[in-house]
Amino acid sequence: ARDINLAVVAGDGIGTEVVEQGLLVLEAALAGSGVGVTTTSFDLGARRWHATGETLTDEDLTAIRTHDAILLGAIGDPTVPSGVLERGLLLKLRFALDHYVNLRPGKLFPGVTGPLANPGEVDFVVVREGTEGPYVGNGGAIRVGTPHEVANEVSVNTAFGVERVVRDAFARAAARPRKKLTLVHKHNVLVHAGHLWRRTVEALNAEFPDVTVDYLHVDAATIFLVTDPGRFDVIVTDNLFGDILTDLAAAITGGIGLAASANINPDRTAPSMFEPVHGSAPDIAGQGKADPTATVLSVALLLDHLGLHTQARVVEDAVAADLAERGTAARVRSTAEVGKDLAARVAG
Amino acid sequence: ARDINLAVVAGDGIGTEVVEQGLLVLEAALAGSGVGVTTTSFDLGARRWHATGETLTDEDLTAIRTHDAILLGAIGDPTVPSGVLERGLLLKLRFALDHYVNLRPGKLFPGVTGPLANPGEVDFVVVREGTEGPYVGNGGAIRVGTPHEVANEVSVNTAFGVERVVRDAFARAAARPRKKLTLVHKHNVLVHAGHLWRRTVEALNAEFPDVTVDYLHVDAATIFLVTDPGRFDVIVTDNLFGDILTDLAAAITGGIGLAASANINPDRTAPSMFEPVHGSAPDIAGQGKADPTATVLSVALLLDHLGLHTQARVVEDAVAADLAERGTAARVRSTAEVGKDLAARVAG
Ligand SMILES: CC(C)[C@H](C(=O)O)[C@@H](O)C(=O)O
Ligand SMILES: CC(C)[C@H](C(=O)O)[C@@H](O)C(=O)O
Repeated sequence: ARDINLAVVAGDGIGTEVVEQGLLVLEAALAGSGVGVTTTSFDLGARRWHATGETLTDEDLTAIRTHDAILLGAIGDPTVPSGVLERGLLLKLRFALDHYVNLRPGKLFPGVTGPLANPGEVDFVVVREGTEGPYVGNGGAIRVGTPHEVANEVSVNTAFGVERVVRDAFARAAARPRKKLTLVHKHNVLVHAGHLWRRTVEALNAEFPDVTVDYLHVDAATIFLVTDPGRFDVIVTDNLFGDILTDLAAAITGGIGLAASANINPDRTAPSMFEPVHGSAPDIAGQGKADPTATVLSVALLLDHLGLHTQARVVEDAVAADLAERGTAARVRSTAEVGKDLAARVAG
Repeated sequence: ARDINLAVVAGDGIGTEVVEQGLLVLEAALAGSGVGVTTTSFDLGARRWHATGETLTDEDLTAIRTHDAILLGAIGDPTVPSGVLERGLLLKLRFALDHYVNLRPGKLFPGVTGPLANPGEVDFVVVREGTEGPYVGNGGAIRVGTPHEVANEVSVNTAFGVERVVRDAFARAAARPRKKLTLVHKHNVLVHAGHLWRRTVEALNAEFPDVTVDYLHVDAATIFLVTDPGRFDVIVTDNLFGDILTDLAAAITGGIGLAASANINPDRTAPSMFEPVHGSAPDIAGQGKADPTATVLSVALLLDHLGLHTQARVVEDAVAADLAERGTAARVRSTAEVGKDLAARVAG
């Protein structure tokens, strides 16, 4: 097995802190496997933008493309106008590298206390479309700043784009014990996009006859996420609904400090990207307060994507064991301490 | 005081059951006040559509316009193609009657147990824009049913539309003890619409200097709704985000059986419409299982809108008293029993 050629985009705020721990655990997981890891750091985010005005150049993108995978910390800073880094860097990476499967597990680990009184067993995964919807940047405004301003945002949905992500979601559902797929949309209002999604799910069900399909409007889905999260197995939804549902899913499974994500290009025409669901959290940046667990779980998704399933399970098991003991811990550990503990568990 | 001239659209499924109880309580609340109520029933919904193919004719609309207010049960049925009644009837009413303030209180009444382990005190109100956003029906598709289908949905936001609903939300916040307004949007992705909303809130803050303003991305807002709902006082947001947040808000405050809403035309150029947040629930329709409380609380909003504040408080207090005793009740009551009990308390 050859070494992993990893692009590292630590980014802003707590991004650098959590990525450092993620890499520590990654190295521990690979120790003795014969697979090494070589990292290239990319200076992208608020600092670079302030210094150069650049978000992500063609050269950056070309260099990133030569890697096997990307580990990303967090992007965004209050000193940069809203949208500049999100659209010019984070979303540009997802779109340019065709990350059409944005995979976000929603799992309540034993020992973790979330906000729900009786969550029951929670173990689902959201397949969020990553390259279409209202995220395409197809909006505009006229007469800005006047009483006659009109600002539009367009959600673009294509048969090509919907079909490939729904197919991926079906395959994931078929590989899970419960084999259940829930489409979430709002087809009673967004009839054109909604009916494309619905027809696509109905058509592909023929290829995956073992998978049971159901449908929820996005508003109803939020209700079930807090009243009966155990009903979900695989959820497939569009880019914006997926954004909303996965933050809520993170909240009910212990918070964004634990929520991992993978931006996957299933065709492997470009590197996939692994990142915690949380943002750069400028309010706690630089204080060693961030929980690196979401990044470490994203590293497990990275290992899975690269076929290193044994190592992925070791990382996940280390996190599970660490979480199981947190409730009885004497004090809250720093970012580096959690990373060190997880690496030690992984090492064994 | 002259009589209330009320248009009643009971609609589909449990709509008829809950509206009946809502009217019973309304009459009880008005007894002895000198104000009577005259109702006109409009046969709108699935039955009418099946019989005539009509959703809402110009004649219906003209007749409805002559009323002081509308009480609506629920619209929608699985036998009607998705979107037909929602867009042709419910949304058509909201748009044609310029219901630009869709008001949805999120209040956890004492004695009510929701899904959260430690909700704390929850008492906020969502001001959802009701006449713009992705609800305008400005979508379309080409090459439908082919591998080259493209289906778009457009969110339309105007300075006129945003300004008037934000102003209403500020006025509501200014009249509440905490005087706090939270704008919810996603301006880091939906930059054009998002920045219009943000600029509007910033500009109007000058007119309401006592109101403290903050901002949350919609994904983060769902997190706070389950981890710290007490942080919210007044939320202002667009039509789609408001749809999602208010179902979640209903869930954490005891379920959609308790969630009231008002579709308000603050300029009073057309009647406002009062309806429970829940749908027609075909699975339990006709069984006397629906909780009419959401409709009864919507009746309280109706009374408030018509200036009958004393009567509105009586209805709300009756609901609060009823809810406080539910936990200790021997059995679950039918729709009619709950209505009768509430009417008795109001009379009482
Ligand atoms: C930062 C933002 C653009 C991003 C998104 O909306 O996708 C984030 O919320 C996420 O979920 O990864
Ligand atoms: C039935 C549907 C069109 C409606 C909406 O989306 O507004 C409902 O969900 C609501 O919240 O009143």
